[in-house]
Amino acid sequence: MATAKLISGKEVSDEIRSRLKETVANLSIVPKLAIVQVGGREDSNVYIRMKKNFAESVGGTSIHVQLPNTTTQPELEKVVQKLNQDKSVHGIIVQLPFDSIELIDAHEVTNMIVPEKDVDGLTVINSGNLLHGKLGGDHSYKPCTPNGCIELIKKSGVPIAGARAVVIGRSQIVGSPMAQLLVWNNATVTICHSRTKNLPEICREAEILVVAIGKPLFVKKEWIKPGAVVIDCGINSISDPTKKSGQRLVGDVDFDEAKKVASYITPVPGGVGPMTVAMLISNTVDSAVRVSKSK
Amino acid sequence: MATAKLISGKEVSDEIRSRLKETVANLSIVPKLAIVQVGGREDSNVYIRMKKNFAESVGGTSIHVQLPNTTTQPELEKVVQKLNQDKSVHGIIVQLPFDSIELIDAHEVTNMIVPEKDVDGLTVINSGNLLHGKLGGDHSYKPCTPNGCIELIKKSGVPIAGARAVVIGRSQIVGSPMAQLLVWNNATVTICHSRTKNLPEICREAEILVVAIGKPLFVKKEWIKPGAVVIDCGINSISDPTKKSGQRLVGDVDFDEAKKVASYITPVPGGVGPMTVAMLISNTVDSAVRVSKSK
Repeated sequence: MATAKLISGKEVSDEIRSRLKETVANLSIVPKLAIVQVGGREDSNVYIRMKKNFAESVGGTSIHVQLPNTTTQPELEKVVQKLNQDKSVHGIIVQLPFDSIELIDAHEVTNMIVPEKDVDGLTVINSGNLLHGKLGGDHSYKPCTPNGCIELIKKSGVPIAGARAVVIGRSQIVGSPMAQLLVWNNATVTICHSRTKNLPEICREAEILVVAIGKPLFVKKEWIKPGAVVIDCGINSISDPTKKSGQRLVGDVDFDEAKKVASYITPVPGGVGPMTVAMLISNTVDSAVRVSKSK
Repeated sequence: MATAKLISGKEVSDEIRSRLKETVANLSIVPKLAIVQVGGREDSNVYIRMKKNFAESVGGTSIHVQLPNTTTQPELEKVVQKLNQDKSVHGIIVQLPFDSIELIDAHEVTNMIVPEKDVDGLTVINSGNLLHGKLGGDHSYKPCTPNGCIELIKKSGVPIAGARAVVIGRSQIVGSPMAQLLVWNNATVTICHSRTKNLPEICREAEILVVAIGKPLFVKKEWIKPGAVVIDCGINSISDPTKKSGQRLVGDVDFDEAKKVASYITPVPGGVGPMTVAMLISNTVDSAVRVSKSK
């Protein structure tokens, strides 16, 4: 039986790392990412460590502003404003979700980041540019996870232009920007979500299927068109008595079965995950390059 | 042979006019729309007259700032900034395309309008909110033509939630925001464009088909799923020797044939057209209501 080829996010992100390292080596300034955290969620700590490590591995640097869980929104906003003004900082992210005893509007805080430092690409201005098909350009960043997915699809060699793509999920962070990136890469895109009827049937139309719905092993083998490229943005913890921890990580796609029909598929972990961090640091380096050119 | 029922934009926009008239009658302030024009294109003059007339017909008012075709971008920006600050003005639009001998960046000028007066709903901030599913709300307006289409679909009585919708076109003004409005009305949406392959086949999947591609009589009867709702945003002038003017207006859909298979269809003219103006004045009245409430 044929088996899909794996698209390794690990491998592609390492390629990006090498490319960025070269860029940074030729820069007269050191790209700096500021990470703002409220509280100390363990999962956030892991992600932040990955971001810091990646930044350093390409010759960049980072500052981690860790605020207590008693921080109020005005206090947090003051921190972001200061980073907006700090000329040594090229990218700013606020690590979500906040671990806070105060009521903080994550949307409002995120939108305080000036567009030219919004390396997560999640502010409303970056999103509007994306809807308008203004990708990249001077003060615009592509959101990291969707942009990482595009890189993985490109790695497969399957052309995006003219392909039928289906995106399951319409979140602000993944699904909605993903669909737009595919549209502006000239795919014909169908957006599915919790209210979609006949989801398996619609999935089967996809030559490129991107799943970002947050339900473990949700997409079955029968939903996948033979030969499709399958990109799995899910990362879910399920119980597994055979593991020491009693748990294992799975995606939104039933990987073991799906790989029997797909042509290319991303594993979980090691697929989309590493790409998010790589694209974040790539955006930060881009920002530093712009600053350096404008000098 | 069965024939599709017409969805009359004229009728729906008249209903909206009556509703707005009542709202304005109960307001202590007069909703005011500012229209900024550069040069004097004849088609723009016609549209501006329609907007002014609609505003007045509901008890609102308008100011028409007509600038010479020698206006520079900084001069134009100064005008917009002044209107941004003018408390008597509730909505601002810049009439596109400009008729100017100067190089003016329409995108930049449009984006100078403050979000709370962006009644065309076309600034990048409004577009970002739309991509994020933040519809309406305090400082957010739905773009007029797509929102008019939603009203027309609702008028048909066919449920949007769960329906398969296909949008042909991905323009900033119609196609792209249209797809988002349908997504957030819970349709499963496919976005098609010039690079789409097998367009007729994909069209036939649509229970709701919205066409905004600017090609006269482009969509044929055979492309339409029997019983579909067809919304035609096109407005094209083609030659017609039987007419005194030698021309007539047609949409992007081959209306005479399409009406034989659709369940509901919009005519051109008299379909989407009147709705754009109605939604613009509806947004302007909404803005005035907000201002009045905040007093």
